[in-house]
Amino acid sequence: MRSVKAFAPATVANVSCGFDILGFAIDAMGDVVEISLRDEPGLQVVSIEGDEGRLPYEVEKNTCAVAIQAMLDEMDKQVGMDIYLKKGLPLGSGMGSSAASAVAALVAANHLLGEPFEKKSLLPFAIAAEKAACGAGHADNVAPSLLGGFVLIRDYHPLDVIKLHVPDGLHCTLLHPHFELKTSDSRSVLRDNVSLKHSTIQSGNVAGLIAGLFQEDFDLIGRSLRDVIAEPYRATLIPGFYEVKEAVKAAGALGMGISGSGPTLFALSKGAEVSESIIKAAQQVYDSIGLGVDAYHSAINIRGAYILEEK
Amino acid sequence: MRSVKAFAPATVANVSCGFDILGFAIDAMGDVVEISLRDEPGLQVVSIEGDEGRLPYEVEKNTCAVAIQAMLDEMDKQVGMDIYLKKGLPLGSGMGSSAASAVAALVAANHLLGEPFEKKSLLPFAIAAEKAACGAGHADNVAPSLLGGFVLIRDYHPLDVIKLHVPDGLHCTLLHPHFELKTSDSRSVLRDNVSLKHSTIQSGNVAGLIAGLFQEDFDLIGRSLRDVIAEPYRATLIPGFYEVKEAVKAAGALGMGISGSGPTLFALSKGAEVSESIIKAAQQVYDSIGLGVDAYHSAINIRGAYILEEK
Repeated sequence: MRSVKAFAPATVANVSCGFDILGFAIDAMGDVVEISLRDEPGLQVVSIEGDEGRLPYEVEKNTCAVAIQAMLDEMDKQVGMDIYLKKGLPLGSGMGSSAASAVAALVAANHLLGEPFEKKSLLPFAIAAEKAACGAGHADNVAPSLLGGFVLIRDYHPLDVIKLHVPDGLHCTLLHPHFELKTSDSRSVLRDNVSLKHSTIQSGNVAGLIAGLFQEDFDLIGRSLRDVIAEPYRATLIPGFYEVKEAVKAAGALGMGISGSGPTLFALSKGAEVSESIIKAAQQVYDSIGLGVDAYHSAINIRGAYILEEK
Repeated sequence: MRSVKAFAPATVANVSCGFDILGFAIDAMGDVVEISLRDEPGLQVVSIEGDEGRLPYEVEKNTCAVAIQAMLDEMDKQVGMDIYLKKGLPLGSGMGSSAASAVAALVAANHLLGEPFEKKSLLPFAIAAEKAACGAGHADNVAPSLLGGFVLIRDYHPLDVIKLHVPDGLHCTLLHPHFELKTSDSRSVLRDNVSLKHSTIQSGNVAGLIAGLFQEDFDLIGRSLRDVIAEPYRATLIPGFYEVKEAVKAAGALGMGISGSGPTLFALSKGAEVSESIIKAAQQVYDSIGLGVDAYHSAINIRGAYILEEK
């Protein structure tokens, strides 16, 4: 039977000042989903690799299956599909793990069906899967994973997703410390209200970040990577946060923040060369507090999810 | 004695979603200040035209004199200057009246002294004058009046002012209804706190507006002209606000908001042609509620303040 394999990249949501509205995709990591057609209708998750047995096979819970089912429901179509998921990024790390699975599944399934949807139109199905996986239908991981680059979610009602310019040479370092931080905990420390002053500061920085991307002004990007709304509360849940931040900035990072709801931290830099120094500086801090860390670095992924193979 | 005459444009601050961080300059209106050197040191306001006798001549209170004095203090210099101010925009209208006076005075005086400061470096002196005139040292009128175009004030500590790209053809209509709205009243209706949800919506819109300017996407600019933080409260002080908004959008405006703290309203459009329809539509609403209105339309001023004449 015909089958299609697709890749969807890991993503960094929020990007400091862009709380709940910004995200970008990275080249270095992502999920691969293979979908093959089957005669009898219905979805089936056949295999999951790289998740240490933690992800569900039930089609009502598996993010790949939920996403594809949402697409099939929209088409009012019954199709039989076998789903093979290969995790390429750690679960619960704040790098958009569920988003990458859902997006790779959608891109593969859409291709298999002859591309009834243009890429951007797959977004609502990926959001439905996020809602099933995380309880909240956020788009700040699925949109960049699908479309690539830096993506702004200006609004949800109706969905208004804007792909932004990314300067050549903008590079990302990811630091994934070895401890678990539940999204629900990371969410629960946030306040329901913010001061008008902080709201204005946040607006100024997100405006600065967008301008910095378009103007290819790396210094401005760095100055704008400041979050006064979520970071002050979430940082308290992340050991060594401020020490790591200071160290990586001293090592040449433009700025550093929490990737999604953490615990992974992201740092942006001009060029790839400085990443080694950033990683070294961060590792020293983590060593000093006795915490292990996985470090990666990567160019920004510009193309988003794509087809790897078709049989 | 040598004299220099300078022009500084009227400005629209806030720009809906850009509360306290964004402003732009318009071509159609502005103040003219002439400064001439005098032998004995000290500043003197010699004449003020077009203010209906409302502006102070005392150098401690006059915004032109305060701005120049701040500049001279920074240079630690004693110079004798006569100041002639010609108001070209209405006072207390929300179009940056005090800002235009201060900026025109600074640009003229700086030129007269042989340009000891580059243009951008005059900003702190203009902010000092705003503080004297309005009680708050905002930069969202003085920065665009000085520099032109759309200007982002990313931060005040330290001052970080970024000039943004302006698409060709972006046009502004200004509607100044005949009633007075005190800045202090307009400020006092604001809340000290905003919900996290509204803060996020505001961030999304300001990010969309900046992206729309750089991408020259007029529809995106229009969709982003939405203010959930100040407008809902200030609109209650402005008769006919929502009716005018509906009418001018139906007439082809991309969006409409309050200019500064009001009562003037601004509407943006693609091209100048639609301005006549916008003005007509607004005038019908104002007629129906028995309120007079002065209407203007103008291209965005790109160059900022400039020297008119040197003698």
